[in-house]
Amino acid sequence: MKSPIPDYLDEMLENERPDEAGELAGYIQELASADPDQLGAALATLDGEIYCAGDTDIEFSIQSISKPFAYALALADRGVDQVLDKVDVEPSGEAFNEISLDKDGRPLNPMINAGAITTHSLIGLPGCTAEDRVERMVEGLSAFAGRRLAVDEGVYRSELDDAHRNLAIAHMLRSYDVLTEDPRAVVDGYTRQCSLMVTVHDLAMMAATLANQGVNPVTGERAVPVAVIRQVLSVMSTCGMYDAAGDWTTQVGIPAKSGVSGGVIGALPGQMGIATFSPRLDNHGNSVRGVALFERFSSDMGLHLMEVPAAARSVLREHAPSGTETVRIFDLQGSIRFAGAERVVREIVRTDIAEDRVALDLTAVHSLDDVARRMLLEVARRLSIEGKEVFLVDPDTVIPDPDPGTDGSLAVVSRRDELH
Amino acid sequence: MKSPIPDYLDEMLENERPDEAGELAGYIQELASADPDQLGAALATLDGEIYCAGDTDIEFSIQSISKPFAYALALADRGVDQVLDKVDVEPSGEAFNEISLDKDGRPLNPMINAGAITTHSLIGLPGCTAEDRVERMVEGLSAFAGRRLAVDEGVYRSELDDAHRNLAIAHMLRSYDVLTEDPRAVVDGYTRQCSLMVTVHDLAMMAATLANQGVNPVTGERAVPVAVIRQVLSVMSTCGMYDAAGDWTTQVGIPAKSGVSGGVIGALPGQMGIATFSPRLDNHGNSVRGVALFERFSSDMGLHLMEVPAAARSVLREHAPSGTETVRIFDLQGSIRFAGAERVVREIVRTDIAEDRVALDLTAVHSLDDVARRMLLEVARRLSIEGKEVFLVDPDTVIPDPDPGTDGSLAVVSRRDELH
Amino acid sequence: MKSPIPDYLDEMLENERPDEAGELAGYIQELASADPDQLGAALATLDGEIYCAGDTDIEFSIQSISKPFAYALALADRGVDQVLDKVDVEPSGEAFNEISLDKDGRPLNPMINAGAITTHSLIGLPGCTAEDRVERMVEGLSAFAGRRLAVDEGVYRSELDDAHRNLAIAHMLRSYDVLTEDPRAVVDGYTRQCSLMVTVHDLAMMAATLANQGVNPVTGERAVPVAVIRQVLSVMSTCGMYDAAGDWTTQVGIPAKSGVSGGVIGALPGQMGIATFSPRLDNHGNSVRGVALFERFSSDMGLHLMEVPAAARSVLREHAPSGTETVRIFDLQGSIRFAGAERVVREIVRTDIAEDRVALDLTAVHSLDDVARRMLLEVARRLSIEGKEVFLVDPDTVIPDPDPGTDGSLAVVSRRDELH
Amino acid sequence: MKSPIPDYLDEMLENERPDEAGELAGYIQELASADPDQLGAALATLDGEIYCAGDTDIEFSIQSISKPFAYALALADRGVDQVLDKVDVEPSGEAFNEISLDKDGRPLNPMINAGAITTHSLIGLPGCTAEDRVERMVEGLSAFAGRRLAVDEGVYRSELDDAHRNLAIAHMLRSYDVLTEDPRAVVDGYTRQCSLMVTVHDLAMMAATLANQGVNPVTGERAVPVAVIRQVLSVMSTCGMYDAAGDWTTQVGIPAKSGVSGGVIGALPGQMGIATFSPRLDNHGNSVRGVALFERFSSDMGLHLMEVPAAARSVLREHAPSGTETVRIFDLQGSIRFAGAERVVREIVRTDIAEDRVALDLTAVHSLDDVARRMLLEVARRLSIEGKEVFLVDPDTVIPDPDPGTDGSLAVVSRRDELH
Repeated sequence: MKSPIPDYLDEMLENERPDEAGELAGYIQELASADPDQLGAALATLDGEIYCAGDTDIEFSIQSISKPFAYALALADRGVDQVLDKVDVEPSGEAFNEISLDKDGRPLNPMINAGAITTHSLIGLPGCTAEDRVERMVEGLSAFAGRRLAVDEGVYRSELDDAHRNLAIAHMLRSYDVLTEDPRAVVDGYTRQCSLMVTVHDLAMMAATLANQGVNPVTGERAVPVAVIRQVLSVMSTCGMYDAAGDWTTQVGIPAKSGVSGGVIGALPGQMGIATFSPRLDNHGNSVRGVALFERFSSDMGLHLMEVPAAARSVLREHAPSGTETVRIFDLQGSIRFAGAERVVREIVRTDIAEDRVALDLTAVHSLDDVARRMLLEVARRLSIEGKEVFLVDPDTVIPDPDPGTDGSLAVVSRRDELH
Repeated sequence: MKSPIPDYLDEMLENERPDEAGELAGYIQELASADPDQLGAALATLDGEIYCAGDTDIEFSIQSISKPFAYALALADRGVDQVLDKVDVEPSGEAFNEISLDKDGRPLNPMINAGAITTHSLIGLPGCTAEDRVERMVEGLSAFAGRRLAVDEGVYRSELDDAHRNLAIAHMLRSYDVLTEDPRAVVDGYTRQCSLMVTVHDLAMMAATLANQGVNPVTGERAVPVAVIRQVLSVMSTCGMYDAAGDWTTQVGIPAKSGVSGGVIGALPGQMGIATFSPRLDNHGNSVRGVALFERFSSDMGLHLMEVPAAARSVLREHAPSGTETVRIFDLQGSIRFAGAERVVREIVRTDIAEDRVALDLTAVHSLDDVARRMLLEVARRLSIEGKEVFLVDPDTVIPDPDPGTDGSLAVVSRRDELH
Repeated sequence: MKSPIPDYLDEMLENERPDEAGELAGYIQELASADPDQLGAALATLDGEIYCAGDTDIEFSIQSISKPFAYALALADRGVDQVLDKVDVEPSGEAFNEISLDKDGRPLNPMINAGAITTHSLIGLPGCTAEDRVERMVEGLSAFAGRRLAVDEGVYRSELDDAHRNLAIAHMLRSYDVLTEDPRAVVDGYTRQCSLMVTVHDLAMMAATLANQGVNPVTGERAVPVAVIRQVLSVMSTCGMYDAAGDWTTQVGIPAKSGVSGGVIGALPGQMGIATFSPRLDNHGNSVRGVALFERFSSDMGLHLMEVPAAARSVLREHAPSGTETVRIFDLQGSIRFAGAERVVREIVRTDIAEDRVALDLTAVHSLDDVARRMLLEVARRLSIEGKEVFLVDPDTVIPDPDPGTDGSLAVVSRRDELH
Repeated sequence: MKSPIPDYLDEMLENERPDEAGELAGYIQELASADPDQLGAALATLDGEIYCAGDTDIEFSIQSISKPFAYALALADRGVDQVLDKVDVEPSGEAFNEISLDKDGRPLNPMINAGAITTHSLIGLPGCTAEDRVERMVEGLSAFAGRRLAVDEGVYRSELDDAHRNLAIAHMLRSYDVLTEDPRAVVDGYTRQCSLMVTVHDLAMMAATLANQGVNPVTGERAVPVAVIRQVLSVMSTCGMYDAAGDWTTQVGIPAKSGVSGGVIGALPGQMGIATFSPRLDNHGNSVRGVALFERFSSDMGLHLMEVPAAARSVLREHAPSGTETVRIFDLQGSIRFAGAERVVREIVRTDIAEDRVALDLTAVHSLDDVARRMLLEVARRLSIEGKEVFLVDPDTVIPDPDPGTDGSLAVVSRRDELH
């Protein structure tokens, strides 16, 4: 049988292909000479599968799509506080090349150039050389991609020759001591960062690494600590699409980043990474067909962050205890977070349990987060304090090393049969 | 057994109670005389349970927290396009009382006063009287709350006497023809909207109605169409917390709205509604203890939108078919959206199925969204075209009226045993 | 003989008449229906002569040209300090209808609408009624014009119906307590102020009153105290021509004010008042042909404030004393201000005066300002202290009641012959 | 006899000396180490006299006071149009170090740093080297001062090390192609310009050269063409005192420029140049005691541009013709510009002249500008066309080579006696 997913991707591309609206980024020589008709898309799952369609092997410079990854590296290398000290996380409502500094010279967010230049300067250990920083940047972004990326010297030189706006920004940042290094060296490194060559396949994989809590789904390598990811995705969600942030948030609802070479990435936490490539840009600087594809993807695949399907059924299976049983069993199922755990807790609290033994059966539980785990253990603790003998049926060790806490006690069994 | 959740809420309130930082909103007479020590919080689940702690019966004026609900009503009454035509959805990066219009006079978003005043004017049918509009507004917000709310005449009169800034905004909007009605009447109605009296219990229920796709969890009444909710929550996620949007997005990550009377609401789609009440405000105009409580709630309960627990296990249970069976069964489980359905599709595509009969067992599936449903049916269609006899095991009718499409055929059974 | 000046004016008008560029002010009904071809100009001298050309009898609403006169009245009625407290004097670099308030809500200058509305509220004695204020305004502007001006009720009502932007501004000012009166009443009065009907002849006379230190050249009536004039002319020189202030300052160099009905006035201190009228406006809101006429007037008549003709000769006539005279005479001539007086002082200081008697002959002095008067008297005092007998020859009493100060003595004669 | 002027200057300095308000410019190393108590002032007349008081020999770096002179050089070297094309003349209402570019990247005026850096790049012939430009700049400013000025290498190096803001501005200007040269070289040259060392004596002389239509009063050397001066003084009058332009215009009323090293210059066209030096600055960046001294100078010496003394007497002497004379004589006197000439013309037009011969006696005329000259000649022409025999009595050749125009005829005599 042939998978319907490649068919779907091909169809989407063919739908958008006739749209020739928009313009190539004119201000960078190398970009202005791109083939405007190029079109590609890729979806990468969190267990390492990737679906590609269209021009997936064409390399183009990563440009601003490097920004969230460089931000992740800076957060990993310097910590959230030190980075926040230099770069704020407020949406700017302005174009990517606005200076947008606050009154102390702090860039409004890491997705505008001022913030991205500052962010670049925070990659690597304090005091590292500009060369070490560039190597750390290349190695770091490569870890996201799962292959060694390389700078295109032609693009790099072309952009550096015309980097006056970035030099202006860097000197301005230096004048505020937001940047503490040589502005020219930082712009040089930042220009190299923007000149890394990627394919739409690479970008989908990089986005999937963000969606997968920082671990590359194919190589299994951790690119950055998990603690960094929330910060990066949050900033992408509010500042990723330049001054079109509001439309994107309402229409697409996926944390994203676009670049002037025509790429767009989206990272859906816990679900997948998406990338598109089409060089013609709208007046916000976002790829025209890329934005259209994301709108279709979001709508067709139900990816909007604010659209959550109503649960088909409760996290608790109905239980109709026969009067003859000696153990009261609560059957849990599905993905349980706070809201699900609350239902379980409430049900147990309300139930008049005559039996001496109480069991929580986790066999059908699909996922369970920290708070849900803690809440179930607290219930177990309270039940045991009230004199019940409490069991977890947990064949797949959904709760490893369960600790019912002070005065609590708990037994784990791997099959329901063992209760009898 | 006593539920641990009220204990948790009480503990959180006691933790924050000593923090006396911040100031009462000074510019509204009635608010300036509030008791600054008041403190309350409430969590409302989507099946109608509510947990309250602290000062949950005290009524205060809803103020800006009315904005997302009024926006929902306007969207319901006029449609998204007509409302977008008048009020944009871009984060403003400015304080609530900035005028923040674009070059055509369109307010940047419905959460700043200019946008909220315009939004108020869009409630009700075109051409309705100012009185009808106010009645529609009261009735609409009451549907969210699940009880009839009322305007406090004292607050209303006090605010109207000092509504010069809002009158300035309304006349400015009128000069751009963004507002097409009498500015004084609109400000009058908007002031009434802000003077509706609520408790923290009401606010949690209103937030839960947003989180529950527009249906009040207790009354079961639909306050607004489901299509409206995504728009409202998206705008709350980027524009709800005034110019502190970025910090809130990274630290709390819950679509929210605050008001100068000291309330804050958060609506987690598919999970719950949260509300806090504490009158002292920080310099952004957000409740100091309210923000602190939300940070704790988000962290303790794992509510940040960008933090999704890793799935504990696959949506596919392992299957070890014995050579003797005559039907190949795929066992699905958990909450299945696009990413999960893709896993299922991929597994089926890759499997070399010798048997003539293939079954998808949905018994352990907790929830299934539209795209997942369509993908599973497409797989069934393709399998049947290839000559297989295809079955759904669906005891709880997770897929009602399954249609495998052109050339496909499909049988539904309610128990696995029936396959044999 | 026929004066060449009317010929010159006629010629200028014919030169500009063919220029049909610009648009009528579209946003005020009554202005949009004006005859766009109207064209007039007038020059008023400080001794009451007026030269008119073109459409000099057509009445039009004064609009923003009322602003400097209303400012003069407010300064007269409340004093400079109290007015400065409410309205700053900084150029705004913005269009007339921008709000342009500083962080305390103070309008940047009295020539933008926010400043003019505030200024209107400062006309009349503190506590006066809105009606009294309007009467004081009409009477005050009439004193400048030298005839009773009247409000056109049609224009007034038309503008008041569409005064939403001014109402917005007034309510905003009220919210900052910059305006302390009822915003609607102030806008009503301000709209009446803008609706006063004038001819280009009136405007030239009003400008001449400014140029004549506040005294109407024809009626001889003082419209405002002299101390007020410097402030008004200074503000006109930097803020009078909306956001085209810089071009006007360099190209024309005359303190000026324009209005949307097509008038422009210029007031050259000590020289004359000028007015033009032509309704089509450029994109700054200034009359196209009015600006062109002023550029020609300034260039042809040498009116630019920064262009001062080089003095043809010294303030001191050469004196070649014969050895036989018994009095040393210094012959002064021309207009003497500080720089001229310094020359005189220097010459006297440097001269080795053998004679016992010294005379300053003021017969040929055309004008003499305060500082020059004080300097000459100080020289007289020092000479008399050194033992000289000092005389002023002052047939026209250029220095009335000369007081040579402590230890000085001085004799005045009215003819040089008397010295011998 | 001792001149009272030095006494006056000394007194003024002693009055202001106790005021220790303000701060040294902290951001430039060399300036931060200046002696804050230094205080000096100088007045330079247009015939080469200079009065100095206080610390007149101390050299300090010229800083922003170089801007109007560099602007004059650029205007001289490239023409007004080409310079206007790159740098506008609008007041910015902003601090000196704001970027303040219009939407095409054009600096708002030549007195802010962005405008001054661009202006520096326009000194010298197109295509000249950076070294040639610096030499032209030093030579040009030296011509204003009347002595060879020199760059202080210590100041220059110190400022260049900390020139990040200026480098930011220059790169930004380069990105807009407003600057077409290497930004680093331009900032280097501009920094040298700011590092020229001057005394308060030099500054007064430079200001006097501006006031004297571009000719140094001592050396007699023309620093720039006369056509340039109006533009420079106009821009100083609106943009010279940073964002305090409005206060300065109303309170002082003298075209001026201040610098962060503590200098202030004022240039009164046709009258004199003034300079003060006192390093402590107010929060606009203007010298505290310098501003106070200028306020006193303006008030005491009647220097405000908007305060013109009322003429003491008419430009026409009364003439009481005896019936027996055969020539009708009009006796002119004083400084005659348009307004005076108009009076003369009017009188002649109104006079019923019986005599065949008419004379204009210019013996007592102090100065006469172009327009007055043309008007008098036109009157002469018209009189001769009407059949009169017309004479000019012009002993000092106030009107050289008088040409009465088509159909006119005119005789010149040097003494009134010759008429009889």
